[in-house]
Amino acid sequence: MTQLDDLDRAIIRLLKRNARLTISELSEQLNKPESTIHFRIKKLIEKGVIDRYTILLGEEMIPKKTAIVVIQAETPIIEDFLERYVNHLMRTLSMMPNVLMVAKSGKDTVIAIVGGENEEKLDEFINENIKTLPTLKNVYVYPIDKFGKGKELVNFLTEV
Amino acid sequence: MTQLDDLDRAIIRLLKRNARLTISELSEQLNKPESTIHFRIKKLIEKGVIDRYTILLGEEMIPKKTAIVVIQAETPIIEDFLERYVNHLMRTLSMMPNVLMVAKSGKDTVIAIVGGENEEKLDEFINENIKTLPTLKNVYVYPIDKFGKGKELVNFLTEV
Repeated sequence: MTQLDDLDRAIIRLLKRNARLTISELSEQLNKPESTIHFRIKKLIEKGVIDRYTILLGEEMIPKKTAIVVIQAETPIIEDFLERYVNHLMRTLSMMPNVLMVAKSGKDTVIAIVGGENEEKLDEFINENIKTLPTLKNVYVYPIDKFGKGKELVNFLTEV
Repeated sequence: MTQLDDLDRAIIRLLKRNARLTISELSEQLNKPESTIHFRIKKLIEKGVIDRYTILLGEEMIPKKTAIVVIQAETPIIEDFLERYVNHLMRTLSMMPNVLMVAKSGKDTVIAIVGGENEEKLDEFINENIKTLPTLKNVYVYPIDKFGKGKELVNFLTEV
């Protein structure tokens, strides 16, 4: 694990908020010479602390309503098929553009973050496209009413 | 909702992968004049389709193991207190650096994405810092074994 000092952390925090800040703007805000800032960013990228630069989509591009869906697969008669069921579920969900995240937990559970234009369309999508998938035992839907932290994951995960 | 055409979408997809691409590199990859690319990006930012530029942290900076935790608050004797319980839970969780996301679902449920250096430390954190919170009825822990989509949300949400 790379050790970061206060200056590294300050640079990372500023770039997280706005990665278009120039070396000279960072230098001014952090009260350090431009050469120092330049060298630190170079090192942070070389060491893989900063992996890459990306963009975040704005509010009007992202789903207005999201839900976390916990899906439990049915245990098949031939138990070896469970892994296939789950892998198939994950692939199917991952292909849906409304589905922002798909993760596997344990042997039989798949968790997804799903988005929709509004509550009604989100429900409709879940009812018609997720709950109807074969080999499901249970589907628990947790509509998100408010984020306390990490709200921007929706902006980050939305595709165009 | 802003209508995007194929060129807008292509620009957004390339910038999502690498927001440091220059106008001239985008122009070359998309086989369009630099002036067109420049104008489109300007418009996408003006219209709020692109909200901002940010950085993603690399693998070595992020928690190796994550879990989704579904927390149900106890219904208090005085029912009006439930909202306070839940808000307090959300605030407490949001302050923990290991907690990457916190969201409220319905009246009594809080969902969090939690990270740890490894499985053991993650379990320890959940047992010692989440399960011990007062006013909880149930805590369901779903350790994430594999992402099918949206894996980078961990890189995006990790703080330094």
